[in-house]
Amino acid sequence: MAEGKPEPFDRLVVVGLGLIGSSIARAARRYGLAREIVAVDGDAAVRARVQDLGIADHVTGDAAEGAAGGDLVVLCVPVGAIGPVALAMLPHLKPGAIVSDVGSVKASIVAAIRPHLPEGVALVPGHPVAGTEYSGPDAGFSTLFSGRWCILTPPEGTEEAAIERVRALWEGMGAIVETMSPEHHDLVLAITSHVPHLIAYNIVGTAADLETVTQSEVIKFSAGGFRDFTRIASSDPTMWRDIFLNNRDAVLEMLGRFNEDLAALAKAVRWGDGEALHAMFTRTRAIRRSIVALGQETAAPDFGRPRTAEDGTGPAAKP
Amino acid sequence: MAEGKPEPFDRLVVVGLGLIGSSIARAARRYGLAREIVAVDGDAAVRARVQDLGIADHVTGDAAEGAAGGDLVVLCVPVGAIGPVALAMLPHLKPGAIVSDVGSVKASIVAAIRPHLPEGVALVPGHPVAGTEYSGPDAGFSTLFSGRWCILTPPEGTEEAAIERVRALWEGMGAIVETMSPEHHDLVLAITSHVPHLIAYNIVGTAADLETVTQSEVIKFSAGGFRDFTRIASSDPTMWRDIFLNNRDAVLEMLGRFNEDLAALAKAVRWGDGEALHAMFTRTRAIRRSIVALGQETAAPDFGRPRTAEDGTGPAAKP
Repeated sequence: MAEGKPEPFDRLVVVGLGLIGSSIARAARRYGLAREIVAVDGDAAVRARVQDLGIADHVTGDAAEGAAGGDLVVLCVPVGAIGPVALAMLPHLKPGAIVSDVGSVKASIVAAIRPHLPEGVALVPGHPVAGTEYSGPDAGFSTLFSGRWCILTPPEGTEEAAIERVRALWEGMGAIVETMSPEHHDLVLAITSHVPHLIAYNIVGTAADLETVTQSEVIKFSAGGFRDFTRIASSDPTMWRDIFLNNRDAVLEMLGRFNEDLAALAKAVRWGDGEALHAMFTRTRAIRRSIVALGQETAAPDFGRPRTAEDGTGPAAKP
Repeated sequence: MAEGKPEPFDRLVVVGLGLIGSSIARAARRYGLAREIVAVDGDAAVRARVQDLGIADHVTGDAAEGAAGGDLVVLCVPVGAIGPVALAMLPHLKPGAIVSDVGSVKASIVAAIRPHLPEGVALVPGHPVAGTEYSGPDAGFSTLFSGRWCILTPPEGTEEAAIERVRALWEGMGAIVETMSPEHHDLVLAITSHVPHLIAYNIVGTAADLETVTQSEVIKFSAGGFRDFTRIASSDPTMWRDIFLNNRDAVLEMLGRFNEDLAALAKAVRWGDGEALHAMFTRTRAIRRSIVALGQETAAPDFGRPRTAEDGTGPAAKP
């Protein structure tokens, strides 16, 4: 844990000013975590928007220019681009610089970058488990990481000092930091994030292809559960393509287990085994309670739209 | 469409004072849709709570007493109990009375009740597509149905006047009413609600059984997508057991299609077919936009907790 206010970075370089990158730029400035913030983005429209928003001190589309003099470079591009973008910037980094990222997959990123690290440059990959279903520099905000976990996956042998500086940045932005190996990270995220996204994308696709039920009916009557899946399934397609391409083994492993369990559940439905169904549906409630208790979710009922305050009769929030 | 204010029911009987039943009682009183509201519930604790809340004029645990003199009886008990409870009440209904319900399955309910209808009593089954993951008389509130769809599935030959009176009740509570056959209803809900719940329950169960990832890790890092599934998977177990037992064929049909699509998606992951993945993930975004456009969901980003208003920098709500 960092004590007191951490020493700010002299030059924080944020590469890719989407939801996460622009949130880091905003939070770093707001909480005084960097003396200078450099924004690097390959998209001219994004650069222009970042200029207008005024969330960085310097904006460039040139990787070498962006890398020069940076003491922390955080790569916030889709997982598939992190390796190539890192390789373009590494030769321009000064000794003592730290390279980090925010990708949702970690082992493949370590494998892509580590062999090419210049002498004296440290690699401390990170993954803030935070976000919304929106993308782009307008979607970010400075409190996105507040109370959220950020997982750091430094490869073995990384200098403690580098890890501590990256930890201090995330804690300064309000995150709770945990470290684990890249491989374990990828397993954990496969079940808590990647497979849930895959099955959400999948059921929305299944619904779109029906002949017996019209698309308009699916949309109208979506409040019964389907709606929540469409929110997840509206996340950025490029980001998610890259995640699945880069975490194949863990995703297929978890998906295999999901399919086995679903086959058992389908059998209970087919044979009318009410006892098995009830037991299964009861068991899952406890996990929900733990998530609410841990502050990762509110207990407020979700209606898919803001509550009207006009109704004084209910509901009481229950655990 | 009803024009102007509908004639209130003389005696509205709500059977089962859970989330939906207690919301109907609250809304009927608030919007002046019934002169007298009778609450029937087999659970003494619920009856006591309904008395305390003061949301009904008369509270009883006796089906015959509850049915006597009612001109509309709405059964708000779990799907598996609707048939038996209806059969207990039917002999005590007066000619001209209407029996309705709010079950999430319709064909099996029509089959259970219709053969036993006394002369002059009409059956107009209904299903408000609204709710939260909470249960019980405290969870209800009078605006639950506002702007939500309610599907009526009157069997062929039902008198128009009875259908119109039930329609007027729902419209009076703010719902948008649509009618369809019980069989078609069950297909539509299988894909928009029943299968989504089944796979949400399933993945939460899969996550609970892992040895390689601890339950505490699943809970901590649930913000990446899993959290939304746990909300759905915390709905009432008895209600959902009954739904699956009573809509078996439609659920298994939709689940079969879901599984075929998931196999194709898994194959794309295994073979690294990025183009197929990207195309699939792009396609599902359009459906989300339609749901938001139809007012069944807000476009506001979902963080799993209320936004802090303190941050002026973002985000702009985008479609």
